[in-house]
Amino acid sequence: MKEFELYVITGENFHPGRAMEDVMEEAMQGGADIIQLRDKKSSKLEVLEKARKLRQLTYDYGVTFIVNDHIDVALTVDADGIHLGQDDLPLADARQIVGPDKLIGISTHAIEEAKAAEAGGADYIGAGPVFPTNTKEDVVDPVATSYVQAVKAEVNIPFVAIGGIKLHNVDEVLEAGAERICVVSEIVGAEDVKGTTEMFKKRLAAAKGEA
Amino acid sequence: MKEFELYVITGENFHPGRAMEDVMEEAMQGGADIIQLRDKKSSKLEVLEKARKLRQLTYDYGVTFIVNDHIDVALTVDADGIHLGQDDLPLADARQIVGPDKLIGISTHAIEEAKAAEAGGADYIGAGPVFPTNTKEDVVDPVATSYVQAVKAEVNIPFVAIGGIKLHNVDEVLEAGAERICVVSEIVGAEDVKGTTEMFKKRLAAAKGEA
Ligand code: NI
Repeated sequence: MKEFELYVITGENFHPGRAMEDVMEEAMQGGADIIQLRDKKSSKLEVLEKARKLRQLTYDYGVTFIVNDHIDVALTVDADGIHLGQDDLPLADARQIVGPDKLIGISTHAIEEAKAAEAGGADYIGAGPVFPTNTKEDVVDPVATSYVQAVKAEVNIPFVAIGGIKLHNVDEVLEAGAERICVVSEIVGAEDVKGTTEMFKKRLAAAKGEA
Repeated sequence: MKEFELYVITGENFHPGRAMEDVMEEAMQGGADIIQLRDKKSSKLEVLEKARKLRQLTYDYGVTFIVNDHIDVALTVDADGIHLGQDDLPLADARQIVGPDKLIGISTHAIEEAKAAEAGGADYIGAGPVFPTNTKEDVVDPVATSYVQAVKAEVNIPFVAIGGIKLHNVDEVLEAGAERICVVSEIVGAEDVKGTTEMFKKRLAAAKGEA
């Protein structure tokens, strides 16, 4: 898959009163490389409408577009890929439906899950939650930066560190070896979404320079 | 599509303490022609496991198997079709994903919706809710038997009357012209699921005999 370092997921509850597509466009202007639509509450039709808006914007900005969970929506809007959790459709079944060309990302919380995803043909994995988070409904215990180190040592497909990553703790994650990070609330809930996104990009660039 | 007259939808909240697949198997033994898996609460993985069980049983009994909403699950277990509401993926988009051979059923509550589904290539429609019901989360006002009459007069694809249909009111629905009915709580919540299913079949047969 196309190289990436900053992955931003929608989180509409973090920006009441602002349109989702405006917030995500600012994140793209600030340098987000991948946008994921995650919406487990709206009707399918509403998710589809949101996906159409993001598909258009991500085309405009040359950004990769991933849909969480809703394979049907991803296919309908021709998203670049889907992201699945451990309780979603199994990777092999999903691959059967979407075909070889769509990206499939898998959330992992333990090294066996990470290795299974790699062996099963995932294009990338999420590794986390690194820190405590209340972004997702079903909260998993944080795995800490030791999991980032373990994945870096033992998995060869791209991994993106996720979960509670903020400007105040991102350096810990980068020092643990993450080269790609996923951010939700700190970016989409920011007063200055574009500026905050740029700050994360700078931290990523700095870590790369030091490496 | 294969002719049918009694369509039974899962409703696990109506049979606490009993396994869903046992209840649905009894409905098949009693003469259900179509079984639909409707589950908007479980994880995708749990829905998939339920669908696998029902797919096996419906094969065994020669019963048509429909999955509500979860197109990915329907494709994975090779269900006979999917059922979509007005807030689900639009019919044309769903057809694109499932191909020409899968059945697609559409819930309708107004004659324009019924005609749109027919024009869009639906294989059948649901017409209802005929009576008040609290089976679905998002309750729609009942459309009464007048809607059954309207659909019968104006729509040419098979329609199945749905919503609050019980043994005490099924004759009203049949007299309004329905030749296919959908039942949830009265069957899956019955103490004698098979016997209750048989009673509905008798009422359907009697109405047919009189027609
Ligand atoms: Ni739905």
